[in-house]
Amino acid sequence: MELITDITAMRSWCAAARRAGGRIALVPTMGYFHAGHLALMDRARSLADRVVVSLFVNPLQFGPTEDLDRYPRDLERDQRLAGERGVDVLFAPAVETMYPSETATRVVVGELGTRLCGASRPGHFDGVATVVAKLFHIVGPDVAVFGEKDFQQLVILRRMAADLDFPVTIVGHPVVREPDGLAMSSRNTYLSPEERRRAAAISRGLRRARELVAGGERRVEAIATAVEAVLTDAGLRSEYVAVVDSATLAPQHKVTQRSRLLVAAWAGATRLIDNCALTPSGEVIAP
Amino acid sequence: MELITDITAMRSWCAAARRAGGRIALVPTMGYFHAGHLALMDRARSLADRVVVSLFVNPLQFGPTEDLDRYPRDLERDQRLAGERGVDVLFAPAVETMYPSETATRVVVGELGTRLCGASRPGHFDGVATVVAKLFHIVGPDVAVFGEKDFQQLVILRRMAADLDFPVTIVGHPVVREPDGLAMSSRNTYLSPEERRRAAAISRGLRRARELVAGGERRVEAIATAVEAVLTDAGLRSEYVAVVDSATLAPQHKVTQRSRLLVAAWAGATRLIDNCALTPSGEVIAP
Repeated sequence: MELITDITAMRSWCAAARRAGGRIALVPTMGYFHAGHLALMDRARSLADRVVVSLFVNPLQFGPTEDLDRYPRDLERDQRLAGERGVDVLFAPAVETMYPSETATRVVVGELGTRLCGASRPGHFDGVATVVAKLFHIVGPDVAVFGEKDFQQLVILRRMAADLDFPVTIVGHPVVREPDGLAMSSRNTYLSPEERRRAAAISRGLRRARELVAGGERRVEAIATAVEAVLTDAGLRSEYVAVVDSATLAPQHKVTQRSRLLVAAWAGATRLIDNCALTPSGEVIAP
Repeated sequence: MELITDITAMRSWCAAARRAGGRIALVPTMGYFHAGHLALMDRARSLADRVVVSLFVNPLQFGPTEDLDRYPRDLERDQRLAGERGVDVLFAPAVETMYPSETATRVVVGELGTRLCGASRPGHFDGVATVVAKLFHIVGPDVAVFGEKDFQQLVILRRMAADLDFPVTIVGHPVVREPDGLAMSSRNTYLSPEERRRAAAISRGLRRARELVAGGERRVEAIATAVEAVLTDAGLRSEYVAVVDSATLAPQHKVTQRSRLLVAAWAGATRLIDNCALTPSGEVIAP
């Protein structure tokens, strides 16, 4: 596996891969790989001839009070894991490479980015959309793979790709979970042992919601109340529990085939998110 | 020459051209071709193997009180002119093709787009940047050619391409003028014979500014006052007369090698713009 840190070198590598007739898949990440990232790499491998994984902790998507500085990093370990997974290139540019001067241009995603996670993280999704647009322009992938764990991000990037006619297919990959159900996240490393134990309540809340829907409940308010109770009982602070249309993120009052349940909650000082489909066609929530 | 109106067909044509090893130049236009557009097509031809000219009157860059509905259109004539000029494809999508639903995503250009023309046309440059990003994603050009007539637009698109790492070279082409010096513009067709006669004062103002600089004047205020006088004497209403850094559009107080003079003025109900370099290295303003 090659490690590339330079934009020109990355473009050249991709141009050569394309000339050789290969399809390129891109997996944009912020590094500190866990089993979720590795699943995205496997998915990318199944979709293309060449797999490029980008590793960039993007300052533009962090608010001034957020965890940019303490976000976990371990390039050496990430390099080894990606290499073992058959990734062709790990593209890990420095901040000064991606933002040599203050960027005047942004890709903004409008109202889709102001709700749910966007309500507490103003500008976050514009920062995500902007850096993903840059990565698309540098790599020129045929397909890009994102985790469903960041469901709002996935919907927004699908919308961005459609609105701006990006010549790339956006693929979402299901959430990968710990044995107790906690969605894999690099931020799980922030949790104390006690917080880590409590954090499993989030996926229990999702499971409770699916059980209610399986039992015939269709009222979003009743479902949200039940999920809030699971979170609160475990000592978590809920930020939002929302049922939205999975394609548009529009809030729903009644559960439909298109419903997605999204949750953000705090375990101590750590913000965690998770989500699931609510209807029987969705995949089963483990454990 | 092919006329293409469909995005998928345009992508296929470009993919085939690229597979054949050809470099593609794109000339984005709003149609109603004049000698200025034809010069851009010639320039594009000199830079690439294939020339695509897009023709799209972009609603996103027109304000609610602007001239979207009466903007001049003549596809048949444009097709003939582009064909005679050796253009390979005229890409003329319908509005519903480019904007099948309301676009949630915009490319915004920040402070660069709020000054000069942006002050009286809020959102205009965001609309331009957004549609040009879409065209770049559809055509995937190696190089794109824009007229220096829209100088602020050119600076903004250069900045957009750099900030977002678009894999495209932006080329600016000098203003093409009528025999009396008026910069070519599709909007010149709005002018009454009397307004048309008066409109030549804009290029006379530019020439006066260059004469002052050639004579040693470096104070922007003195130069702007002289240009305003030329416009007013001819019965034009000046919107702005500004001297800015040609790379950043930052206002200047003293003329430098990087100075550009930008003018917007009204002849009756028609808004006209023009610009020139101020230093001896710039090209001579005709006539």
